[in-house]
Amino acid sequence: MFTLLKTEGRARRGTMTTPHGTIQTPVFMNVGTQAAIKGALDAEDLARIGCQIELSNTYHLHVRPGEDVVRKLGGLHRFMAWDRPILTDSGGFQIFSLASLRKITEEGVHFHSHVDGRAIFMGPEESMAIQSALGSDIAMAFDECIENPSPRPYVEASVARTTRWLERCKAALSELNARADAVNPGQVLFGINQGGTYDDIRVEHMKRIAELDLAGYAVGGLAVGEPTEVMYHILDEVLPFAPSDRPRYLMGVGTPANIIEAVYRGIDFFDCVMPARNARHGHLYTHEGVINLNNQKYQLDDRPIEEGCPCPTCRRHSRAYLRHLFRAQEMLAMRLAVVHNLYFYNRLMADIRDALDEGRFEAFRAAWVEPLSRRI
Amino acid sequence: MFTLLKTEGRARRGTMTTPHGTIQTPVFMNVGTQAAIKGALDAEDLARIGCQIELSNTYHLHVRPGEDVVRKLGGLHRFMAWDRPILTDSGGFQIFSLASLRKITEEGVHFHSHVDGRAIFMGPEESMAIQSALGSDIAMAFDECIENPSPRPYVEASVARTTRWLERCKAALSELNARADAVNPGQVLFGINQGGTYDDIRVEHMKRIAELDLAGYAVGGLAVGEPTEVMYHILDEVLPFAPSDRPRYLMGVGTPANIIEAVYRGIDFFDCVMPARNARHGHLYTHEGVINLNNQKYQLDDRPIEEGCPCPTCRRHSRAYLRHLFRAQEMLAMRLAVVHNLYFYNRLMADIRDALDEGRFEAFRAAWVEPLSRRI
Repeated sequence: MFTLLKTEGRARRGTMTTPHGTIQTPVFMNVGTQAAIKGALDAEDLARIGCQIELSNTYHLHVRPGEDVVRKLGGLHRFMAWDRPILTDSGGFQIFSLASLRKITEEGVHFHSHVDGRAIFMGPEESMAIQSALGSDIAMAFDECIENPSPRPYVEASVARTTRWLERCKAALSELNARADAVNPGQVLFGINQGGTYDDIRVEHMKRIAELDLAGYAVGGLAVGEPTEVMYHILDEVLPFAPSDRPRYLMGVGTPANIIEAVYRGIDFFDCVMPARNARHGHLYTHEGVINLNNQKYQLDDRPIEEGCPCPTCRRHSRAYLRHLFRAQEMLAMRLAVVHNLYFYNRLMADIRDALDEGRFEAFRAAWVEPLSRRI
Repeated sequence: MFTLLKTEGRARRGTMTTPHGTIQTPVFMNVGTQAAIKGALDAEDLARIGCQIELSNTYHLHVRPGEDVVRKLGGLHRFMAWDRPILTDSGGFQIFSLASLRKITEEGVHFHSHVDGRAIFMGPEESMAIQSALGSDIAMAFDECIENPSPRPYVEASVARTTRWLERCKAALSELNARADAVNPGQVLFGINQGGTYDDIRVEHMKRIAELDLAGYAVGGLAVGEPTEVMYHILDEVLPFAPSDRPRYLMGVGTPANIIEAVYRGIDFFDCVMPARNARHGHLYTHEGVINLNNQKYQLDDRPIEEGCPCPTCRRHSRAYLRHLFRAQEMLAMRLAVVHNLYFYNRLMADIRDALDEGRFEAFRAAWVEPLSRRI
């Protein structure tokens, strides 16, 4: 299902085939938390901005509209009118970042909904059942996402439990896929490596979950407070123990520079809410760095966000018009900005793939990490 | 510039040629108050939903970003990337409905901005100068929009002043169009009939302004509180005195039934914020009546808003998905709903034109006024 086409150093160029089509990797997944991209983008827009795979959130869709509604409407692909690949997360991250009154047991997590305060229980079997009803192509294992730094004894106990939960996830999804009424019986499971910032716990955990022969392996619990260099160090330490014939997904990361550095270390899948969130605040990506459209200097600037950018926003609209829309608090400001930033990210990944295809990824990395990190 | 192609009773089928193309009438103008359609629609979306002419608001654009900014960026067409016809209102209506601390003199109106409280003066010359800088194709006369009902002596004095203001508007625009740096020297002026709910004042005013040989004539100050039957009655009384070879515009109206009834009485141009506002609240037009997507009964309804509707929303999305987006407070809900409602209005006008072309408008009116007024 994952095919490694080419490598350059540790960087990898591949494809992953899913029930809804083949993904070219490295890939950035566009985040549609509640089955919609924040900024008023629909599935048609996703196609126009070069999205290969959409990511929705199990926790949010469980709370509203509920997975039974989505299942009755034919699954998430049909619900949101997107017929290409979808990944769902497990709900774990949101339970630990959004919900209140959490209580963790061996069985799972008791918590209260951030929307209406309703008491909810979610464990590995519940998360898999929800993701199966949603019918995503890739389901993520239910894990505990701990803060960085956390005390070593807590991390050891948490990781051991996350491993037991992963075994239960695998068994549960296997049973769900075998049911006659499975929405997407080809749904596969990615495991998630945890271990905080402890190299040895991370490495031992990756070795352990590699034995489970899963469709892919994620590195979770990073970009949650630790310095960037720590994140890169952990990737350096852990990825040699991830199966080379399976895709690797760095969850919730990151800036263009983070992505290039993580591809360099062997990551294939990314997701991040940052480009869309930055867009909604008027921070737009260009190859010279990030521009802030709220700046007075753009008041009469009739150039597009980036000259030569083929995105639907840059083909038609000026910085001055977008700045006006932001100041006038028009919803259209957010839409046009999100379209540009997500297009920019999807194009960055295409450029990375081209560089890998042509054996010049090292040069690409050397040329772009610095300028893409600028704020101008 | 206006050509009357055909009549059926008092109803009229025509065309109006502007510097940015020809408009087929009767027409509904899509409202982009601040040079953007509320609900995250841009000029490309306007073209997709069949918009012939966009309407922007002089008051709002004067306050933000200011007409000098728009002029320096090449005028409103270039600013918002819409190369088809644009009408700007005069600012009068917003001054009387939005601004605070108004003081009316013979010269014009002193008021305070609703955005930042800044003191502003606007009279006929100022309104024309702003509209000239914006470069719309049709400028509206600066008038006083009075409440209904208002005392007769006040209405008489106000209408007399509005007439004097209209003469000043005509002179001002003529001078502005003659300048070498005019943004759109082909810009034309529509006069506005006022007179509250007093038939005789309305008729005398229309006779008076008809003598000014303007490019078009609007009926203003209606749909501001008086019963619908009073509005229809005034149209019956006043329109016989509007020049038959000039377009007639009923400002700020209205429901589909209002539009059909006003076309029946001889109106050619319409505008209204209601279809977009209704959309943003989940109230969607169909040929069986208005549906409220917030209703629980649509939770599992996988039909489009209206079966067979060729709008971008109905071609792709279900009522159940839209209902979810509204409940989840996703911006995309508003966008998809506004696209449908404005498409519905533009299509209604096309259907009215087809009926007039084929001599069956009376039957069209008889068939559609009632169902289009239902809430289902």
